[in-house]
Amino acid sequence: MLSRMKTLSCLQILTGCTNTEAQVSSILKYCNSRCLAVVPQGGNTGVVGGNVPVFDEVIINVSSMNNVISFDKVSGILVCEAGCILENLISFLDNRGFIMPLDLGAKGSCQIGGNVSTNAGGLRLLRYGSLHGNVLGLEAVLANGEVLDMLGTLHKDNTGYDLKHLFIGSEGSLGIVTKVSILTPPKLSSVNVAFLACKDYFSCQKLLLEAKRKLGEILSAFEFLDEQSMTLALNHLEGVRNPLPPSLHNFYVLIETTGSNESYDREKLEAFLLSAMEGGLISDGIVAQDIQQASSIWHIREGLPEALIKAGPNYNYDLSLPVEKLYNLVEEMRTRLDNLATVVAYGHLGDGNLHLNISAPQYDDAILAQIEPFVYEWTSKNRGSISAEHGLGLMKANKILYSKSPAAVNVMASIKKLLDPNGILNPYKVLPQSMIH
Amino acid sequence: MLSRMKTLSCLQILTGCTNTEAQVSSILKYCNSRCLAVVPQGGNTGVVGGNVPVFDEVIINVSSMNNVISFDKVSGILVCEAGCILENLISFLDNRGFIMPLDLGAKGSCQIGGNVSTNAGGLRLLRYGSLHGNVLGLEAVLANGEVLDMLGTLHKDNTGYDLKHLFIGSEGSLGIVTKVSILTPPKLSSVNVAFLACKDYFSCQKLLLEAKRKLGEILSAFEFLDEQSMTLALNHLEGVRNPLPPSLHNFYVLIETTGSNESYDREKLEAFLLSAMEGGLISDGIVAQDIQQASSIWHIREGLPEALIKAGPNYNYDLSLPVEKLYNLVEEMRTRLDNLATVVAYGHLGDGNLHLNISAPQYDDAILAQIEPFVYEWTSKNRGSISAEHGLGLMKANKILYSKSPAAVNVMASIKKLLDPNGILNPYKVLPQSMIH
Repeated sequence: MLSRMKTLSCLQILTGCTNTEAQVSSILKYCNSRCLAVVPQGGNTGVVGGNVPVFDEVIINVSSMNNVISFDKVSGILVCEAGCILENLISFLDNRGFIMPLDLGAKGSCQIGGNVSTNAGGLRLLRYGSLHGNVLGLEAVLANGEVLDMLGTLHKDNTGYDLKHLFIGSEGSLGIVTKVSILTPPKLSSVNVAFLACKDYFSCQKLLLEAKRKLGEILSAFEFLDEQSMTLALNHLEGVRNPLPPSLHNFYVLIETTGSNESYDREKLEAFLLSAMEGGLISDGIVAQDIQQASSIWHIREGLPEALIKAGPNYNYDLSLPVEKLYNLVEEMRTRLDNLATVVAYGHLGDGNLHLNISAPQYDDAILAQIEPFVYEWTSKNRGSISAEHGLGLMKANKILYSKSPAAVNVMASIKKLLDPNGILNPYKVLPQSMIH
Repeated sequence: MLSRMKTLSCLQILTGCTNTEAQVSSILKYCNSRCLAVVPQGGNTGVVGGNVPVFDEVIINVSSMNNVISFDKVSGILVCEAGCILENLISFLDNRGFIMPLDLGAKGSCQIGGNVSTNAGGLRLLRYGSLHGNVLGLEAVLANGEVLDMLGTLHKDNTGYDLKHLFIGSEGSLGIVTKVSILTPPKLSSVNVAFLACKDYFSCQKLLLEAKRKLGEILSAFEFLDEQSMTLALNHLEGVRNPLPPSLHNFYVLIETTGSNESYDREKLEAFLLSAMEGGLISDGIVAQDIQQASSIWHIREGLPEALIKAGPNYNYDLSLPVEKLYNLVEEMRTRLDNLATVVAYGHLGDGNLHLNISAPQYDDAILAQIEPFVYEWTSKNRGSISAEHGLGLMKANKILYSKSPAAVNVMASIKKLLDPNGILNPYKVLPQSMIH
């Protein structure tokens, strides 16, 4: 079917930015009737190739659809168009005393429609949960141009199947998200950040359990990085100094609390840190004294993807694993690779999400052969996910069976065929082509 | 198709309790091959008839599938069979320092499989969000007997379409849920309950906004009831006394906070109440001094459905509405009904969920004509939901178009036909029959 695609002379019109869902609808109707494939595009910050055309697909870019439609300050419900840049929404809400329930490194470019379509995770998931919980409604245009209004603004609505979830995380392969309604939490005034050293991974795990219990409702982030990550940050990120000198530690943990009372929260965090120190869970640590210190601590963690790019060739994996087994994979990978490459591990430990990176002197088949399929097989054997938050896109579409059963993938393929019978929406992505045709 | 159904001599075997998903699978395979309709049944506490056979459907009861399969105390992830009674799971977790993210009046009988299949809301939704956010995975048996393993135990998993959401809230019409994996929050030691009087609905609304802002992360419930509800509780619930004597107030609000530090939380709540009192938002109020007082306050709110049953015939509606408009409907209803019946309104104000009850001397077509379709039309006009948390079941299947667009209902019907082509799963429920055949 896709072989019938042609590059049209009117392609320029079609690839122009769209301003309304009616335009998206017209373009899709036209493309569907001629079996022309399309790629929906937001801020273009995806890392698995879900946002790029593979052959001659028409790009539908929704950047111009960037209006806030409404904001209800009693309920905190924001309704906006898909092209709104995440950082702009964060600023819009900040002025009104609310925050977005998600935050990620790419916030300056990524768009809410793309965030929803890829079910973006990020730094606040531990506290506020995933977009499946926070998105109250959306509008999506189907492959045949039909505009599906699911733009509810209600906390609760049990009337029929909750179709919006099909469009959250399906990477534009079932429809193009054009509007979003999202529940935003009130902004809390007191934020504390601590940066801690642990002697081993077991201590990091134990510390997580204690933090959940003792910091309870104010815990808002629990991130970890290993010594190799810290070395990388020190070598490649401008202005980063060792926050816990003189030497390096095996593991570092970043803990953030967010609450409504500065002195209570601070006291609670300090009591927690004292008991963790006495219990031997942490060997050193600092608490940021002001917002500058807090952001320089966050910069170490958030700057790691940039540091990795600067360091050279990198094979990276975004895995979900049971917390207690997560670092075993890193150690096994080090053994396999020996001195061929540096294994750098960090991630959202509070969510069981490991960002595993293999930083190599050059891209090399011998190195890759040591990594894949081992990394996928190991993840699958431990009932993990081969994509925690990045999606499958083009790069991992054929790897879905490592994380999902054939029966489940068959149902996915049948839903794809039902909603997009000509297969025009973001082809070659998410699902293996062999299962769709 | 359903006319071909026959009552079989082996029905007794089929209606026996099932012990494993393999048995559910065998029964469905058999029934599907013969176009025998089935009704999945849990604790049988549904209130819209989603759980009852209409003609000669085979009942599949999963009560015997009541084992906890695993519990991970680092991550708080519970995996259990569908027949586990909610209260048993609450006790199981309580011993381990965790709680269920949902709680409801029917907890002593309702089962987790039914909770998930109906996307039950309840009393903790304000704090912990809906089951779409808390359920990490599930296992469901499709109409053809295929067992769909989506039983992930990961916070994050972006590999393909998140199919489990189709089974959350679809009331057993797409598959029978047999196992559930759910993220449970740590149990926090400090719970405070306040019961407050407000002079008008506007003050209740304003109080909600202030509570979200000032109680922030410790706010765990915000319930309201009107004077008519309180009168009903005083007249029909055993042992209930007026908590704010001597006279009655127009509105009452129940606020619960849950946190990890008794003295901080108490101080914070008291400061909030003081400022609300000074600002004229509340006219009277008490804070429970111990667990007995807290539960007698909760008993007023939780006992209202029971009080309504005792009071006699009752027309009840479970609506989601924008908070600022919610009570207008109650007032309009009172005007319409004049002295024909008593309008009793209470609900989860923090979630915009109104339980509207019309308590009448007898069931009467003249009264009903004043209520319906007015209540649905009003809700629809204000972009509300005609079922916030109870589902559509048998009683409201034909009313779905008041809350969902025809295009969306068409997609639901096509998914129903895709997954259950013979229409054997819970027929006559959720969707209008005319759209399925």
